Amino acid sequence: MTYGKLYLIPTPLGDGAPETVLPAPVFSLLPTLHRFVVEETRTARRFLSAAGLKGHIGELEFHELNEHTAPSEVEKFLHLFEDGTSVGLLSEAGLPAVADPGALLVALCHRHGIEVVPLVGPSSLMMALMASGLNGQSFAFVGYIPAKTEERRTALKALEKRSAAARQSQILIETPYRNDSLFADMLQCLSGNTRLCVAANLTCEDQFIRTRTIAQWKASPVTIGKRPCVFVILSEHLSF
Amino acid sequence: MTYGKLYLIPTPLGDGAPETVLPAPVFSLLPTLHRFVVEETRTARRFLSAAGLKGHIGELEFHELNEHTAPSEVEKFLHLFEDGTSVGLLSEAGLPAVADPGALLVALCHRHGIEVVPLVGPSSLMMALMASGLNGQSFAFVGYIPAKTEERRTALKALEKRSAAARQSQILIETPYRNDSLFADMLQCLSGNTRLCVAANLTCEDQFIRTRTIAQWKASPVTIGKRPCVFVILSEHLSF
Repeated sequence: MTYGKLYLIPTPLGDGAPETVLPAPVFSLLPTLHRFVVEETRTARRFLSAAGLKGHIGELEFHELNEHTAPSEVEKFLHLFEDGTSVGLLSEAGLPAVADPGALLVALCHRHGIEVVPLVGPSSLMMALMASGLNGQSFAFVGYIPAKTEERRTALKALEKRSAAARQSQILIETPYRNDSLFADMLQCLSGNTRLCVAANLTCEDQFIRTRTIAQWKASPVTIGKRPCVFVILSEHLSF
Repeated sequence: MTYGKLYLIPTPLGDGAPETVLPAPVFSLLPTLHRFVVEETRTARRFLSAAGLKGHIGELEFHELNEHTAPSEVEKFLHLFEDGTSVGLLSEAGLPAVADPGALLVALCHRHGIEVVPLVGPSSLMMALMASGLNGQSFAFVGYIPAKTEERRTALKALEKRSAAARQSQILIETPYRNDSLFADMLQCLSGNTRLCVAANLTCEDQFIRTRTIAQWKASPVTIGKRPCVFVILSEHLSF
C-alpha cells in the first residue's frame, strides 16, 4: 500500500487574513490537497476559502476529528491516505495537534510509516511565551485547570510551586468566558512577587500583552473579557 | 520619554530562504527598522540580507545580547528605545526569547511599559511536538540536560518519571555533536514502551521526524549526526 503524507496546516488565531500569519508554502500546498481532517467543517471551509480556495470548497472532502472522537475510532482514518493521497490536518486556531485532539491522527501516521510534515504558523502559546519576558529556557503548558474556585486555587498554588521548584514558566489557557474569574483567582491566591503575563487576542488588532507581578496587577487590574487569552506564570521564589 | 516598540522577529531554522518560513508582515516590517538586538551580529546580517535588506546592511545598528551578557547589563539597552525608536530582536534560529537569552530584553520592556510585538515564525520545539503525535495538551520544554553519562541517565529517568506522573510530553534539545550519545543513553535507560520522537533538521530538505517506542528504536536505531535535533519523550506508564 502506498500512502500519501499528512500535512499539519496551521490556521490564524483570530479573524485576520491568512496571509498575515502563514508563509508562502502553505498557500502553494493548499490547492494540491482535496482531503482534510478538521475539528469543525464549518470553520475549516471558512479558512480554506479565505486562504485562496474560494469557489473550490465544494470539491473538497472533510472528516471531523474532535473531542467527540474516541481514540479507538482514529484507526478508521488510515484509509484516507490510501492510493498515495495526502491529507491536510487543520485545527480551529493555530497549530494542529498542539492543545487539540489532532495528535491522535499524527500518532496513527507514525504507527503506519506515513510521513508527517509540519508547516509554520502561529502558536498562541509560543507567542505569549516569547512576548512575556518570562523563562523561555524552561516552560510547561498545562492546558486547562479546574474551573471551580477551590480546586482552581489549589491547582494555581501547585503551578506556582512547580514553577519555583523547576524554575519553569507555567502556561495555561481557559475558556474565554472564564478568563476574568481565573484572573481574579490568580490575584487572590498567588504570591505578590510571582510574575504573570496576560496575552489576549494575539496577532489581532487589539492584541494585549502585559507582564506584571501579582502585586502590580492587584494595584491596577484589567478586564480581559471573552477574548482568547494565554496566561504565563513564573514564580520568583527560588527553591534551592 | 517616548519609547518605540520591541518587535520579536523569528528567523529560519536552517539555511532555507526566509520566505519559506516567515509570513508577509515580517518582510514589510524589516525595512522600517534600523536598530537590532541580536545573538550574533554576523548571522543577523546574513539573515537580514537574505530577507530583503541586501545593500542596506551597512546602515543598520547591531547590539549583541547573548549568553555572555550578564542580566545586570540589560538595563543599558533601554536607551535604544528612546525618541520613539523601535527595535528588532533576532535569535540565531527560530523564535527569539524562547530557549535563548532574549527574554531579558523582553522583561526590560515590560518593566518600562514598552510595547512588545511578537511575530509569527518557525518554532522547532512546536514543530517537533505537533509532528510527534505525542501529548500536545500537556508538555514541558526542559532545555539541555547534563552531558555526562551518569548524570544524563539520572536526568532522563527523572524526565520519564515526570512524564508519567503528569502525563506530560517532555521536550529536550542537545548540542548537535552530542545528539547520538544522548540518543544512545535514551535507548539504554528509558523503558521499552516509552515513546520517543526524534525530529532533526526541521523545515530543511532532509527533515527527519519519527516517533517510535524505545523498544522499536532499539530494534532499528538511526544515526542522527550533527543536525539540529529536538527530542520528545512520552511515558506510557500511568501513575494513577
